[in-house]
Amino acid sequence: VTQSAQPAKAVAEVIADATTPARKVVLLPSQFVMRRGGSLPEVHIAFETWGRLSPGRDNAILLLTGLSPSAHAASSPEDPTPGWWEYMVGPGKPIDTGRFYVICVNSLGGCHGSTGPGSVDPRTGARYNLTFPELTVEDIATAARETVRALGIARLHAVVGASLGGMAALAYAIQYPNEVASLVAISAAARALPFAIAIRALQREVIRSDPAWNGGNYPAGVEPTEGMRLARKLGLVSYRSAEEWTHRFGRDRVAKGDNQQTPFGIEFEIESYLEHQARTFIGSFDANSYLYLSRAMDWFDVAEHGGSVDAGLSRIRATSTLVVGVESDILFPLHQQQEIVDVMRKMGRDVAFSALPSVQGHDAFLVDAERFAAVVSQFFAPV
Amino acid sequence: VTQSAQPAKAVAEVIADATTPARKVVLLPSQFVMRRGGSLPEVHIAFETWGRLSPGRDNAILLLTGLSPSAHAASSPEDPTPGWWEYMVGPGKPIDTGRFYVICVNSLGGCHGSTGPGSVDPRTGARYNLTFPELTVEDIATAARETVRALGIARLHAVVGASLGGMAALAYAIQYPNEVASLVAISAAARALPFAIAIRALQREVIRSDPAWNGGNYPAGVEPTEGMRLARKLGLVSYRSAEEWTHRFGRDRVAKGDNQQTPFGIEFEIESYLEHQARTFIGSFDANSYLYLSRAMDWFDVAEHGGSVDAGLSRIRATSTLVVGVESDILFPLHQQQEIVDVMRKMGRDVAFSALPSVQGHDAFLVDAERFAAVVSQFFAPV
Repeated sequence: VTQSAQPAKAVAEVIADATTPARKVVLLPSQFVMRRGGSLPEVHIAFETWGRLSPGRDNAILLLTGLSPSAHAASSPEDPTPGWWEYMVGPGKPIDTGRFYVICVNSLGGCHGSTGPGSVDPRTGARYNLTFPELTVEDIATAARETVRALGIARLHAVVGASLGGMAALAYAIQYPNEVASLVAISAAARALPFAIAIRALQREVIRSDPAWNGGNYPAGVEPTEGMRLARKLGLVSYRSAEEWTHRFGRDRVAKGDNQQTPFGIEFEIESYLEHQARTFIGSFDANSYLYLSRAMDWFDVAEHGGSVDAGLSRIRATSTLVVGVESDILFPLHQQQEIVDVMRKMGRDVAFSALPSVQGHDAFLVDAERFAAVVSQFFAPV
Repeated sequence: VTQSAQPAKAVAEVIADATTPARKVVLLPSQFVMRRGGSLPEVHIAFETWGRLSPGRDNAILLLTGLSPSAHAASSPEDPTPGWWEYMVGPGKPIDTGRFYVICVNSLGGCHGSTGPGSVDPRTGARYNLTFPELTVEDIATAARETVRALGIARLHAVVGASLGGMAALAYAIQYPNEVASLVAISAAARALPFAIAIRALQREVIRSDPAWNGGNYPAGVEPTEGMRLARKLGLVSYRSAEEWTHRFGRDRVAKGDNQQTPFGIEFEIESYLEHQARTFIGSFDANSYLYLSRAMDWFDVAEHGGSVDAGLSRIRATSTLVVGVESDILFPLHQQQEIVDVMRKMGRDVAFSALPSVQGHDAFLVDAERFAAVVSQFFAPV
């Protein structure tokens, strides 16, 4: 996408993104006002779609992502590479693209085609970096909603999200109550609590401590990879569970040849796993995007919508809601999903709740296909 | 203590340490052979004592510390400043210095008066830094035992330790079974599991990533404070519990004046707490000591003593054992204390087990005075 300096269009424009098969981009129709102040003169949101919109335009499901995934949730004829939720989205799958028109957006503030801190500010011709305005989960939901409207959809059959995406799904349903028929919030929370804030704040600090971060003004392509690598490892520690790692790695050592190449170097398999995962991540994610999206999660609190968690959640008008949590999740612990369920049921809402015994922690929705497919299939089963 | 280049003495020598009131230092009588290879030409171990040794020399209790504390477990007439276990050790306290002669040692490899990577190698006149030989929990136990022998004590009434100190207490009782009448292992484990290894490996990597660490060859007094500050924060995240922080900090913000002085700076109280705690720590602890002690915990596995955890624990001959764990501990989770108890009871050992509902996580033994005092008092109560 060419980030043009032209004035914002009156009507949203959908553009094919030549850099990535299947990805399209919408240019939102006007200046985008941010919740905490400031605005963006133009916003591009990258998205992919699967299935066909029904003539009544009433079969659309919006997927909102976690912190790092792109809009490529699943493979398609245009892009046969597996997506991040491949087992969940497709013909005959739990989110059945034979029945539903599925849209997945890359979050505002992200770095996989949507406008974010790494984008060029058309007013200056330079990257935003830290001049990007403060980003909230609500802004992510709003940009997604503008994308949905640009596609000619006035009301979603469902908004679905996990992790940050689950927070964004709550924000969407709270801000646009009449535009959401049903809601699926997976491993989400009504607000960030201090343990998760501590982990994320420390990740951000590790990135900022990398001299290559340079106050956010690193040149394009010269990322603070050391800070990102360490922050990703800390993320992985919080995304999985001790129980899973005990079963998977135990006290296994890496092969002798790889062992202790540097003092205090990698010795245990768990260290090797983290190193491999972190190295896969770096280079694929903009550090400033990471900082903005991470902080947005800390700020999220549905109590900002009416003065209390109850008041915030009471704004949701979805006729059915599915909440899913995982027993081994230490980042978005189960009692936070229970809180959403308790509050909404107290208000007489129809809420299904699955507390899954997966051992994969916060990441279980990405990997425990069996349990998550069953729960989501049941929710979307034809009546 | 003057780190002299004289040959090791035939008899251990106890020296007053002029730098710190109440602290004494023993110079071990011969070259110290390390478990994983290498040796130290001379070893000083710093210690403090409380109470009086009985004429029968049968009332001594040895305290082994966690990673960071010094030998100053409690105040004394010579040093009235509060110690790290002030509520536990003293006249009339759970470890009653009116009845017991209590010895607390600073671990071999540490930096509070005992020989460690920051000590001068008498062979070279320069600090060991990374030429310090590989350190194990067993070496820490051995150096403590040599200190006990230097004080003329052949058999301890009890060896007591928490965290790393609990591992070292197990190692002591396994290596010197006839010299330990009773054993207290608090928030300990028979071996390190991958979640804890991951956290500690990441802390070590954060320290090593600080350019000021300089491959371990930073000048004395020019510490890698940035790496130590971040590693300490990660430690704190693993030492406490999410539940405690939710109750203690919630989503409270710091006062406006302190808020956001830098982009992505401190905003929530939990961040301010971590920053304060971390700043208190840095400057007080040698980075290389931290690396050595941290890695020793990862290596610890009682299965090295006989081929299995069962075989290792079967070597213990203490006539009574107390194991204490905390439900909210994510670093040394309760099932690891349960494992010690199950194995020892299966072998017919007399083991008391307290699984405490403290919310302070791994650090509970330092702060939940009420629960820990009750349990330890009961164990040491006169028959």
